[in-house]
Amino acid sequence: MEYTKYMADRVKTMKGSAIREMFKRMADPEIISLAGGNPAAELFPGDELSKIAGKILMTSPTLALQYGTTDGYPKMKDCARKRAEKVNSVGENDEILIMTGANQGIDLTAKAVLNKGDKIIVESPSFIGSLNAFRTYEAELLGVTVEDDGMSMEELEKTLQNNSDAKIIYTIPTFQNPTGVTMSLEKRKKMLELASKYDVLILEDNPYGDLRFSGEDVPTVKSLDTEGRVIYAGSFSKILSPGMRLGYIVAPAPLAEKIEVLKQVNDVHTPMLTQLMCVEFMKKYDIDKYIAKNRELYGKKCACMIENMEKYFPEGKVKWVTPEGGLFLWCECPTITDISPVVEKCLEKKVAIVPGSNFAIDMFAPSNMFRLNYSSATLENIAEGVKRIGEVLTELL
Amino acid sequence: MEYTKYMADRVKTMKGSAIREMFKRMADPEIISLAGGNPAAELFPGDELSKIAGKILMTSPTLALQYGTTDGYPKMKDCARKRAEKVNSVGENDEILIMTGANQGIDLTAKAVLNKGDKIIVESPSFIGSLNAFRTYEAELLGVTVEDDGMSMEELEKTLQNNSDAKIIYTIPTFQNPTGVTMSLEKRKKMLELASKYDVLILEDNPYGDLRFSGEDVPTVKSLDTEGRVIYAGSFSKILSPGMRLGYIVAPAPLAEKIEVLKQVNDVHTPMLTQLMCVEFMKKYDIDKYIAKNRELYGKKCACMIENMEKYFPEGKVKWVTPEGGLFLWCECPTITDISPVVEKCLEKKVAIVPGSNFAIDMFAPSNMFRLNYSSATLENIAEGVKRIGEVLTELL
Repeated sequence: MEYTKYMADRVKTMKGSAIREMFKRMADPEIISLAGGNPAAELFPGDELSKIAGKILMTSPTLALQYGTTDGYPKMKDCARKRAEKVNSVGENDEILIMTGANQGIDLTAKAVLNKGDKIIVESPSFIGSLNAFRTYEAELLGVTVEDDGMSMEELEKTLQNNSDAKIIYTIPTFQNPTGVTMSLEKRKKMLELASKYDVLILEDNPYGDLRFSGEDVPTVKSLDTEGRVIYAGSFSKILSPGMRLGYIVAPAPLAEKIEVLKQVNDVHTPMLTQLMCVEFMKKYDIDKYIAKNRELYGKKCACMIENMEKYFPEGKVKWVTPEGGLFLWCECPTITDISPVVEKCLEKKVAIVPGSNFAIDMFAPSNMFRLNYSSATLENIAEGVKRIGEVLTELL
Repeated sequence: MEYTKYMADRVKTMKGSAIREMFKRMADPEIISLAGGNPAAELFPGDELSKIAGKILMTSPTLALQYGTTDGYPKMKDCARKRAEKVNSVGENDEILIMTGANQGIDLTAKAVLNKGDKIIVESPSFIGSLNAFRTYEAELLGVTVEDDGMSMEELEKTLQNNSDAKIIYTIPTFQNPTGVTMSLEKRKKMLELASKYDVLILEDNPYGDLRFSGEDVPTVKSLDTEGRVIYAGSFSKILSPGMRLGYIVAPAPLAEKIEVLKQVNDVHTPMLTQLMCVEFMKKYDIDKYIAKNRELYGKKCACMIENMEKYFPEGKVKWVTPEGGLFLWCECPTITDISPVVEKCLEKKVAIVPGSNFAIDMFAPSNMFRLNYSSATLENIAEGVKRIGEVLTELL
């Protein structure tokens, strides 16, 4: 049988994330991966969560194993609220919804807002998981260049002027994926001003905000919003465990109500056990202490990566912005136009990196950039991986 | 701010499932609920899963807490395959995808197949979660009446004749929700014949198939499919735990590939811990023995419900088909046109039932039917609940 004719237009040209495809190729245990977005596994609180899970299932099996409510287990909603309130990101008229990972929140927010052909303004480059989610609603993606201090506001205003029907801006303002860049306070204020002037919503994705290891915190866009324009997506993936798939959305009630209906027909509710485990973990332990340990480790790993980049990358041929937090380092090779041969050669040398095209609005245009992840590999592997990349770059640039 | 103008058309008129809304009203612990679709909590293997979860997190914290792959943890895929193969429902060219509950599989299959305005043929009445999922893709739902032995094949053929552009048939052939009806073997074969003649796909939803307590098993539609037309959705919700949100899809590879991409942008992957727990449970225990206990209990509960219906319902005024398995009993009151006052009065008497309109293609048309659930209440509460419904029916019919 030929199946294409049964497929919705939205999936006909859709391909999986090359990063996750790369994961499959990386079954080879010898490969040093600087490709993924995995947090450091060495700090996962396995023992603590083991005791917590065992106890929950022993003492509250019905609660843990029976159906739950779509909006989330009430105490889990309180936990999410606490995290969001810590950065002043819950408005008076907002509702909180627990999501099976923040990505679900991004996907369902897009589903609640975007008709086919609707315009969504995104950072260029940006996180492929979100870009692909928007693509599945057949939205038109309008890219705005990410500068060293975040989205270009000149370009954003031009884009808004030329697209008066744009509905929403999607941004990862803090330690952006893939660039690692943080949007300045001035730009955040300007973005809100423009959103108000041109009457669009903002979807703020903040999975990395807790992972600052240098510099000063910048207020979330949501915390600066006085009009109720910002939908805020938070995550426990980078501060507790990504495999548990726990995230949340803070949204004005009328939008939250629609997103909740979409979640109801999607996965009915987020698994109960993982919600209960998160609640107990936050009750018994100081999660901020745990996050602080992660921050310290990521600072060390990032410094190690940069030290080795300075040592092994061909001088003057690779540009990057030193991140102040998060998981990623973004590199540009201005003397070439296409990084693909570098990425391939690196894989031959058993080190995996992600080509910039993966994060582009136009995935088929060549890119001279690549993304490095410093959170998941060991210090030794970071040093060795960067050394090998350096050899490839020296040979090919 | 006024938010309607930012909303996608698909959600503007969308409302949550009245059943799940009813759950919220049922916070009152005195209410006897015969409304939900909860499996019996008294049999949940809490102790076994407690030990399993504790051990997994202690010995394999990275596996349980780190990101996993979108298609599912390989051993969990094997478990799903085993369940599907038990009913001969894995074709040669099929792929298996683990879902965060079977509902996600239904939702994402619809997303992979349905453009706006596309036609999907559904049983009338049918499961509201699926109907609402189809509605969110702005598909046109074409209802085909459920008879005592399943979908009317005459009506199905007429519908296919009159809608040559229909793409897919959605069916719950075994212990259908809400009717409890099982489609006969003849009708299953006929449905496949019609699907082939009119060139449409079939989405077979089989969450209750393991729960037969009388009569003989009927082969799944998928097992009779020789052309690769059937996508099969299986679930662990009714045979292990609904709160764990574990289901799966068996689909021809070209479709599975697209559904996988849609899952990737939806929740990235199903939580790892619950997958690992299911794998261990199926390795250490005989899940079929556990299911057999559930079947026996549901048989008893269903018999108790019918015994009390015969005793308390006004004679000759309520019709039903005795189910041979599953969770539901469907009642029709031919002497009235609208069951709403009965449902309201029952709530006053602290017993919750679901009006038929919830399962209708046209949710606003009055219905003289209601659905009873016998799996979750105790035998005592079933008897007491049915007695109270009988009082209301005697008064109002």
